[in-house]
Amino acid sequence: MAPPDYNYEHFNVTFPAQYVAQVEINRPKKLNAFFEPMWLNLGAIFRRLSHDPDVRVVILTAAGDRAFTAGLDVLAASEGDILAQNGASDIDGARKATMIRRHIQEFQDEISTIEKCEKPVIAVLHGVSYGLAIDMTLCCDIRICAKDTRFSVREVEIGLAADIGTLSRLPHANMPMSWVKDVCLTAREFNAEEALGVGFVSGVYDTKATALERALELGRVLASKSPVAVQSTKEVLNYSRDHTVADGLNYIKVWNASALQTKDVPDAMMASLQKRKATFSKL
Amino acid sequence: MAPPDYNYEHFNVTFPAQYVAQVEINRPKKLNAFFEPMWLNLGAIFRRLSHDPDVRVVILTAAGDRAFTAGLDVLAASEGDILAQNGASDIDGARKATMIRRHIQEFQDEISTIEKCEKPVIAVLHGVSYGLAIDMTLCCDIRICAKDTRFSVREVEIGLAADIGTLSRLPHANMPMSWVKDVCLTAREFNAEEALGVGFVSGVYDTKATALERALELGRVLASKSPVAVQSTKEVLNYSRDHTVADGLNYIKVWNASALQTKDVPDAMMASLQKRKATFSKL
Amino acid sequence: MAPPDYNYEHFNVTFPAQYVAQVEINRPKKLNAFFEPMWLNLGAIFRRLSHDPDVRVVILTAAGDRAFTAGLDVLAASEGDILAQNGASDIDGARKATMIRRHIQEFQDEISTIEKCEKPVIAVLHGVSYGLAIDMTLCCDIRICAKDTRFSVREVEIGLAADIGTLSRLPHANMPMSWVKDVCLTAREFNAEEALGVGFVSGVYDTKATALERALELGRVLASKSPVAVQSTKEVLNYSRDHTVADGLNYIKVWNASALQTKDVPDAMMASLQKRKATFSKL
Amino acid sequence: MAPPDYNYEHFNVTFPAQYVAQVEINRPKKLNAFFEPMWLNLGAIFRRLSHDPDVRVVILTAAGDRAFTAGLDVLAASEGDILAQNGASDIDGARKATMIRRHIQEFQDEISTIEKCEKPVIAVLHGVSYGLAIDMTLCCDIRICAKDTRFSVREVEIGLAADIGTLSRLPHANMPMSWVKDVCLTAREFNAEEALGVGFVSGVYDTKATALERALELGRVLASKSPVAVQSTKEVLNYSRDHTVADGLNYIKVWNASALQTKDVPDAMMASLQKRKATFSKL
Amino acid sequence: MAPPDYNYEHFNVTFPAQYVAQVEINRPKKLNAFFEPMWLNLGAIFRRLSHDPDVRVVILTAAGDRAFTAGLDVLAASEGDILAQNGASDIDGARKATMIRRHIQEFQDEISTIEKCEKPVIAVLHGVSYGLAIDMTLCCDIRICAKDTRFSVREVEIGLAADIGTLSRLPHANMPMSWVKDVCLTAREFNAEEALGVGFVSGVYDTKATALERALELGRVLASKSPVAVQSTKEVLNYSRDHTVADGLNYIKVWNASALQTKDVPDAMMASLQKRKATFSKL
Amino acid sequence: MAPPDYNYEHFNVTFPAQYVAQVEINRPKKLNAFFEPMWLNLGAIFRRLSHDPDVRVVILTAAGDRAFTAGLDVLAASEGDILAQNGASDIDGARKATMIRRHIQEFQDEISTIEKCEKPVIAVLHGVSYGLAIDMTLCCDIRICAKDTRFSVREVEIGLAADIGTLSRLPHANMPMSWVKDVCLTAREFNAEEALGVGFVSGVYDTKATALERALELGRVLASKSPVAVQSTKEVLNYSRDHTVADGLNYIKVWNASALQTKDVPDAMMASLQKRKATFSKL
Repeated sequence: MAPPDYNYEHFNVTFPAQYVAQVEINRPKKLNAFFEPMWLNLGAIFRRLSHDPDVRVVILTAAGDRAFTAGLDVLAASEGDILAQNGASDIDGARKATMIRRHIQEFQDEISTIEKCEKPVIAVLHGVSYGLAIDMTLCCDIRICAKDTRFSVREVEIGLAADIGTLSRLPHANMPMSWVKDVCLTAREFNAEEALGVGFVSGVYDTKATALERALELGRVLASKSPVAVQSTKEVLNYSRDHTVADGLNYIKVWNASALQTKDVPDAMMASLQKRKATFSKL
Repeated sequence: MAPPDYNYEHFNVTFPAQYVAQVEINRPKKLNAFFEPMWLNLGAIFRRLSHDPDVRVVILTAAGDRAFTAGLDVLAASEGDILAQNGASDIDGARKATMIRRHIQEFQDEISTIEKCEKPVIAVLHGVSYGLAIDMTLCCDIRICAKDTRFSVREVEIGLAADIGTLSRLPHANMPMSWVKDVCLTAREFNAEEALGVGFVSGVYDTKATALERALELGRVLASKSPVAVQSTKEVLNYSRDHTVADGLNYIKVWNASALQTKDVPDAMMASLQKRKATFSKL
Repeated sequence: MAPPDYNYEHFNVTFPAQYVAQVEINRPKKLNAFFEPMWLNLGAIFRRLSHDPDVRVVILTAAGDRAFTAGLDVLAASEGDILAQNGASDIDGARKATMIRRHIQEFQDEISTIEKCEKPVIAVLHGVSYGLAIDMTLCCDIRICAKDTRFSVREVEIGLAADIGTLSRLPHANMPMSWVKDVCLTAREFNAEEALGVGFVSGVYDTKATALERALELGRVLASKSPVAVQSTKEVLNYSRDHTVADGLNYIKVWNASALQTKDVPDAMMASLQKRKATFSKL
Repeated sequence: MAPPDYNYEHFNVTFPAQYVAQVEINRPKKLNAFFEPMWLNLGAIFRRLSHDPDVRVVILTAAGDRAFTAGLDVLAASEGDILAQNGASDIDGARKATMIRRHIQEFQDEISTIEKCEKPVIAVLHGVSYGLAIDMTLCCDIRICAKDTRFSVREVEIGLAADIGTLSRLPHANMPMSWVKDVCLTAREFNAEEALGVGFVSGVYDTKATALERALELGRVLASKSPVAVQSTKEVLNYSRDHTVADGLNYIKVWNASALQTKDVPDAMMASLQKRKATFSKL
Repeated sequence: MAPPDYNYEHFNVTFPAQYVAQVEINRPKKLNAFFEPMWLNLGAIFRRLSHDPDVRVVILTAAGDRAFTAGLDVLAASEGDILAQNGASDIDGARKATMIRRHIQEFQDEISTIEKCEKPVIAVLHGVSYGLAIDMTLCCDIRICAKDTRFSVREVEIGLAADIGTLSRLPHANMPMSWVKDVCLTAREFNAEEALGVGFVSGVYDTKATALERALELGRVLASKSPVAVQSTKEVLNYSRDHTVADGLNYIKVWNASALQTKDVPDAMMASLQKRKATFSKL
Repeated sequence: MAPPDYNYEHFNVTFPAQYVAQVEINRPKKLNAFFEPMWLNLGAIFRRLSHDPDVRVVILTAAGDRAFTAGLDVLAASEGDILAQNGASDIDGARKATMIRRHIQEFQDEISTIEKCEKPVIAVLHGVSYGLAIDMTLCCDIRICAKDTRFSVREVEIGLAADIGTLSRLPHANMPMSWVKDVCLTAREFNAEEALGVGFVSGVYDTKATALERALELGRVLASKSPVAVQSTKEVLNYSRDHTVADGLNYIKVWNASALQTKDVPDAMMASLQKRKATFSKL
């Protein structure tokens, strides 16, 4: 069966291994900076991947040597919604506020599709990784990077508080809050080593190529496991992050009430006893 | 007064120092793997320790050189509840779900007695520490380990999402989420050094023996402090983990409204001024 | 315009750079230990700083070489409220409890003004930093320290559970919980290196002087950014710490509906494009 | 300007008064029972109404004399997803569960568009109002009905717990829980008088026609007020329902920080002082 | 098969209809007042009923004409734990507090088994219904009563705030808070008519006998429905009471992912189409 | 000992019975409309009453025949903060937002002192009861009114969403949400009978005088009970309103761990057995 159609101008979606999809941001001439059609496309891609039975894990990468993404394309944006709203003198502050809220809501909804994707997502960062790079990869499950990555929660630099997820997700991603506040308030760059030290990434590799290789290897591992087990684990960890331990215990109980009715459990156990690799049905 | 009776086939409960209890998992020939009567016994032990006035701190360890615990005894389990439920073809999916929920609930309740124990619990891990080893020790307050410990959130390997507490407690134990997702989704092993680096354990020692020694020393320290102060601190930290800062501030206020009516405060202060050791009444 | 009047016996409030305020705890002969009038003054200072348009960032430091603060002045306290309440034999336990709750509430409210201050607060610790030192600096946004700092969550040592914020805020400051429990239950000292390793501080400097220098440099950076962006970032990170990701995303959306109606955004963008420094109106 | 295009086979969207939209469920021959394309259309309509500047209030009604809606078209459904999943013997219980979750999620998302619509929605019920009738109108802000309405939380009658919102919203709609449990557990009918007594509806009218008349009158009232004030009030009441009072107070504060920057406030005040009707810009 | 053994001195457990259990409090000479062994027994009974496959609904009643229950047996209690703790002069306030907390916890846990029972519970009140009568029946799903019932949240009358559930559950049982505060703060009696008016009960009957008859009729109705549907509905309503609407929607989705895999759905639908009564397997 | 000094221009504070304070809003010529100094005074009064040992219950009333309060003094306000902020053209929307937030925060804080007052507060409404009348009395524990009361959630009428508490507290005061939305969205008047029907008030009396008489009678009842019991009951009901049942059960347990250490319990029990009135120490 041919893979479904995932063609978009600024994204390359490929399938480097069985059950492994790779989404590559592809606007390298502009340092992969985003403008509105791009986040709409990104959302469309992840909504589809979420239910695609041929996909068990997704790798998020970016084209070119220089940047994962420089973030929002300020120039494009400056001609666009937000500033236009500021400039409009004929509507009052409450009405501007409504326009801004709708705009942010839509933008957030598209980026959050990465987190809502039922399959685990591995981010591979490199080069300039500013602003939206942080928003997006905080939606991913595992983050690794190349040694040359230059991270920045950039928004304060252009006069605003990050509103596409960084400030909401970072306090729950379990890096020390003193560090979180430092990088969010100063908008300063931090490098791969620092990112590894605080746990923003869980691996640093010499080059983008070796980081990608590692992601692919990791992807293959995840793709080889029971998709019921893997996707349940992602869902329950995300739920637990946002709930008390008591609520979390109850949730996994109710979740596993159906998930344990899978053939994957006896199949995985048998394979394990027999020291062979199990294969699992699509999900 | 003789210590109360804590005799169980697969657990040794001893009192290596005043006010210090040690619970040793004792099924070393089976790598201390658990089957149902064991978690029922474990729950019974911790419920009793929680109210035993001769106990102020508990150390959780395991017998033998090879394993803290290999987790669930899959073979025993495979003859047991969960798989039987999968096999039963005469009851429908909803009814199986009810059986599974009740089973998980009971299992969770027993393991959670460690967290609910009013006294602090120190876990000392060594060797194979898979699956239930993580569930159980995440209920403990302090985790240390021997250098040879091999940790793994093993459940994905056998086709299921961990449901006895790991996925509910790990996001709140403040290790970086990218690392949490990595080890939970891949089911890979991690060693003592890695565990220390992310803070899963707060100490690594050369051998099981030296780790035990350190735990005993720590246990003696905790046992020497005001039990009102120590147990209040455990309770309030656990409450705060699951509530907002505002709620936490209110809770300690209401809690201390009675806890501060203890003779331990003036006794401890006086002892501190006089550079001598205070003794505190039972609790 | 002259700076407003911030004169208090035990606090020096100075303005070492434009928009940068420094609050120095000033009772060095008593190791900067606190008694009731001091926390009332501290609260008054931070309430004023919060709305002072000439202030964009606050640095919290302490006078003398030996201590940031030794915590509560136990001797003063022992003549005071809490112990008097324990001693009073003519009122019953419930009425004592009410007195204690009111006392804790007032104390907490004053210390929490640091967290509620609309401007970011940078703590610079050195020397003895016990008890209240932890409560107070957990209310700060960024913590750095001198190499000689000796930290301790000291309260268990004097028979009580910390009730001015440490136990409520520490589980959400994203240090590993096993470490948090260790230092809170044992009341042991930890040094600057350990504090840096777990992320309690995000920087360690050779001396108090060099730490202060770094804080001032950091303060200047924060003061140079858009105050709308900086203060929004602090507020939203604090909100997000206490709410789910979904709630956090909604909050920043509603917050930015007004915050984005600032001239600071186009001004900052323009300055950024022109490689010059922007200046921003007061807030 | 002509109204935008809202044409759907099973819904009539009309504009009976300025700023007032009416959505009529239109499948009267089948008692307005729903099948999948209908809820997709309903969602599309409410998403559009939510942002349509010519709409300030929506009235939800149903065609024909006999029913608001009989709920899910069981026959259509029985050929459809849910039962098919039950019948499929070649996929295991966990995989069926995933299909069911996705199906429910989509269904819920479409119905919830009514609640998420930024404009207030008034439901006018009549005749048979079963199952989905309750799910849908619990998403509405105000419910009134004709005297002949026959309500029922019907789902238990066909072997399932209501999953499109009734069980989630009813406990927060502030009818006494003993009554809520009674009607949800027994699936019994209740009439207009009983619905009024417990507050499920806030008005009962002799006929469908008089109920509609009243809704239109109410709609005109809402349409005549400041849309900033009306839409803010809906949003903040919904937020407050799901949050603590402290959170609610903070939210309205942040919300009104932009909403109060509206010309509507001085315009409404001036009109009020001058005893005339104000007009407000589009939103 | 004979019904399992449910013999207790102060409780009669009978099975007046298929799948219907009746638990009768049986200490009429003492107005059914409770002392410690009684609540331990009550808990044991409801834990067993919760999993008993021959039970689908429970009716909670009390023996004798005069009282459902007068509440706590103050005389028995006054010789017992709580007051003894107050009297003990040799232990300090913090240690008394620990004893009190453990006592309340145990008491609450036993009474909460009624709420946690997987099957719906119908309370039938009559005569004196004081204190614990309110705590217990707020754990029930449906409350009805005889005309002669005299309700009272009695605890303030004897110097304490109700701590076995009334103050925790009443604000969520959806009676107007002004009324809730009135009856809780004054400890005044209210009668059946008032209870019906605010919705504390959903039915009032002339005598205890007719109320019981109605409960039995209601019990038969619930027993005739799909136990999967009925028990799922109870669980999800209780969950939703304590969570946001968004959380509730997610929960029913995950819950129904297994519950919809029941034969009860097609069976109930088929029976409904064929206008006959369905029968359902045990659960 | 003379009662403490409670003199304010627009409030009369009197003590009509032992332990009963009455706060009368006193600006009858302006229909008791509020301007800034009034809410600052109101807050000061309730902060003092909260800790005044001679006060066990507070009655909130208003002077004159025509109004409890007409709400915010729009004219005064129009010269004041909010509108000035709208008018100021030299500051941007973000800076205006900060001013508005601070203003609302202060206003809310003062009004919330009524809810935070440790003693129960009984509101007696009459005549025009608009806007702030609803905000304020939703902070009270019990609301009663005269037959002539004309209620209105007035804010929408002047172009804004109520931001001093009505929208945050009303959904949790347990009136049916369809009614809540109706009165909040339309800003229409409702009378005493309607208020009683939905439970906004728990009693309606012929005249202001008879309502006051009833409040005083109720006040005397509350003042005669154990203040420990009464104040604990208020606190725990307010806590429970904002938390889950499980959290509420835990809270009353911790609260009563000190509250039960009161002489009031044995004193009240003894008095009850001896059919005489107990007297209780100050609190």
